[in-house]
Amino acid sequence: MREIRNEQLKLSAFYDQLENGLDVFVIPRAGFKQTYALFATKYGSIDREFVVPGESEATIVPDGIAHFLEHKMFEQENGEDVFNTFGRYGAMTNAFTSFDTTAYLFQSTDNIDQNLTVLLDFVQAPYFTDESVEKEKGIIEQEIRMYDDNPDWRVYFNFIEGLYQVHPIAIDIAGTAETIQEVTKETLYKCYNTFYHPSNMSIVVVGDVDPLHTHELIKNNQAAKDFQRQPEIERIMVEEPREVRREHHIERMQVSMPKLQFGYKDMSRPVGKEMIINEYATSIGLEALIGRSSALFNRMYEEGLVDKRFGWSYEGTPRFAHSIFGGNTKDPDRVLQLVEAAFADATQNGISAADFERARNKMIGQMVATLDSAKGIARSFSSYFFRDADFFDIIGVMEGLTLEQVNQRLREHLVPEMRTVSLVLPKEM
Amino acid sequence: MREIRNEQLKLSAFYDQLENGLDVFVIPRAGFKQTYALFATKYGSIDREFVVPGESEATIVPDGIAHFLEHKMFEQENGEDVFNTFGRYGAMTNAFTSFDTTAYLFQSTDNIDQNLTVLLDFVQAPYFTDESVEKEKGIIEQEIRMYDDNPDWRVYFNFIEGLYQVHPIAIDIAGTAETIQEVTKETLYKCYNTFYHPSNMSIVVVGDVDPLHTHELIKNNQAAKDFQRQPEIERIMVEEPREVRREHHIERMQVSMPKLQFGYKDMSRPVGKEMIINEYATSIGLEALIGRSSALFNRMYEEGLVDKRFGWSYEGTPRFAHSIFGGNTKDPDRVLQLVEAAFADATQNGISAADFERARNKMIGQMVATLDSAKGIARSFSSYFFRDADFFDIIGVMEGLTLEQVNQRLREHLVPEMRTVSLVLPKEM
Repeated sequence: MREIRNEQLKLSAFYDQLENGLDVFVIPRAGFKQTYALFATKYGSIDREFVVPGESEATIVPDGIAHFLEHKMFEQENGEDVFNTFGRYGAMTNAFTSFDTTAYLFQSTDNIDQNLTVLLDFVQAPYFTDESVEKEKGIIEQEIRMYDDNPDWRVYFNFIEGLYQVHPIAIDIAGTAETIQEVTKETLYKCYNTFYHPSNMSIVVVGDVDPLHTHELIKNNQAAKDFQRQPEIERIMVEEPREVRREHHIERMQVSMPKLQFGYKDMSRPVGKEMIINEYATSIGLEALIGRSSALFNRMYEEGLVDKRFGWSYEGTPRFAHSIFGGNTKDPDRVLQLVEAAFADATQNGISAADFERARNKMIGQMVATLDSAKGIARSFSSYFFRDADFFDIIGVMEGLTLEQVNQRLREHLVPEMRTVSLVLPKEM
Repeated sequence: MREIRNEQLKLSAFYDQLENGLDVFVIPRAGFKQTYALFATKYGSIDREFVVPGESEATIVPDGIAHFLEHKMFEQENGEDVFNTFGRYGAMTNAFTSFDTTAYLFQSTDNIDQNLTVLLDFVQAPYFTDESVEKEKGIIEQEIRMYDDNPDWRVYFNFIEGLYQVHPIAIDIAGTAETIQEVTKETLYKCYNTFYHPSNMSIVVVGDVDPLHTHELIKNNQAAKDFQRQPEIERIMVEEPREVRREHHIERMQVSMPKLQFGYKDMSRPVGKEMIINEYATSIGLEALIGRSSALFNRMYEEGLVDKRFGWSYEGTPRFAHSIFGGNTKDPDRVLQLVEAAFADATQNGISAADFERARNKMIGQMVATLDSAKGIARSFSSYFFRDADFFDIIGVMEGLTLEQVNQRLREHLVPEMRTVSLVLPKEM
């Protein structure tokens, strides 16, 4: 175990890769009352085609299986409910599946050792039966139906679908009512054995913990289990063309106010520290342009076009990248008109030095705020690690960015042909 | 300035009441990157009738004026935008109006002194003109319309309205499109002068700050301003009868899935530490009964009746108290049926010792988690202080509660006649 020190943030991450390949990070934060542990596998909804180590043919799995697997992990052979086991130790547990990660977590103020052991053990003891897989299909189908019914989810997913032509990001994380019917006990075990191998996983523990003791506990837990080193998993990714799938999409739903989401596909996908530079040059530019203190946001707000929840975000990962803007508005056309004018002006003339400084300060403040939260640190650290980057580099990167870099990034990113617009409109309109 | 030490939590609040009556709390948290300051007045939407100090007649103000005032406070005589002023110092600012509080805040990692000064100065420099008041009416009317249009807000507000017969809590915090038309510059100044007097306000600063230095800064800032001590404000509260206004209410809106909120009016409204005992005896009972690990929640979840956002909360204040339960469900009748059966069983037989311990552990964990957040501490501390209670007492109270107290509280609180049900149903149904 070695200490990775960030002098600027006065923070250390203690790191070790165990014999079985598991990456272990312990980030001590003296004075924190709560400890947060995240046990994650680099496996999400976009991992639909891959070569199982040891096989020669590629496997294509049913859409939604990573999420299905997450659900099934909570089933224990002894019939015990994992929520209750954690509950006895005063911990809350949860799990989530994203495009590229599945993660299991607990947070607690006490019994850290017991909770860590429960976390490691339940995720490393899959137990699926034909009956329980069948039963889960009903539950997940309900969940899918609830999402299908949710206008905020629809406007978001129609946006993603409009942006990407062949990329599996455009497939719903939970799959569809049809695709989950194809899930079997056998496919679940196959995905589990491929992606839940320790060499494809990491555990991040953040809190007022002793790094050596925590490391020792995890190391001993893993050493007692029978994992052989596994070669790298070969993931097969289709090549996404530059062009968006469509410029515009409208869905009519039972809403009273139109919902608008739009954004730009980004083909620049550097890795490591370059990814962070790219991400924050873009983010600072977008915050300056359309964030809460921007002239554009103020104008839209004063005109009664948007409320305070209107926002933006940018996701820049090695496997997909795009910006997204939106919220509820009585007049989506007027919003788009104002945004287009402001974006065109920004790509032509650049944002001002004052706007750049304001946005950078805000983004630095947000980033630093994350460091006060065990959850914030664990989630962000894990997510950047899976993308071969170091979360703690972000502040230094932001401080080193120049106005010219940001303006350059806005010119590259805000290309009209790379944009798609998604609308959910009221049925009567 | 004196130190109020909580040995159990290893936390101190440094307290002083200044000459002008302002209550100042500084809560140092070593190692926190972010500082959060909350400057609050004990004045919210339910303060609609009061005697202005020095006058003999009661004043009744238009509904929504506290919220209107919050909006107007951001206008500066020099035309400067407060958001930008804070932005220059790397701070984020915000404000909110609730039933009984209006609060202004900033959070920042740097320039704490400058930001504190900006916060104190802008809230203590009201500037209203006839023109700007008229203009604001348009903006707030938009905001009201957006809320009117929001089914989650409607189902909540119909619930509150169903619970209370004459209590002003049943008036929308923002007022209505009609009542805000009655707001004038003069009424705004009258409310401001009455409720924004330092003796009706508090400031709470949480972060890695030096209490003496912070106290000195606030003290000097206040000493330089010309505030005379003001007598206590006489608030006129109508007496709310025991009975709920109605058992049941349905509104039809453009939603795809029914929305259900229901809950119980609570007539027991102790103050100080007794309020906290009452609040947490109730909360632990409700968490045990219907929280995420309860048998009832699991049954509803397995039947596909509710999703993970289905929840409960309890608000117990000296001026109003009620529980609320709800979420989206395809079958509200079935949910109510299951809930009624489980609640009837609990009031008859009590919850089990194991469920009590599990729920208490979870609530303690949640409470302790708040202590890792400058925002969490400041918001909670301020809110309990205005209710004559000490936020830091909560853990001790929870640890001291018995199963019998919780069961007693459930019997008192879950009285069928004290319940109201609010539904928003799809238009076609």
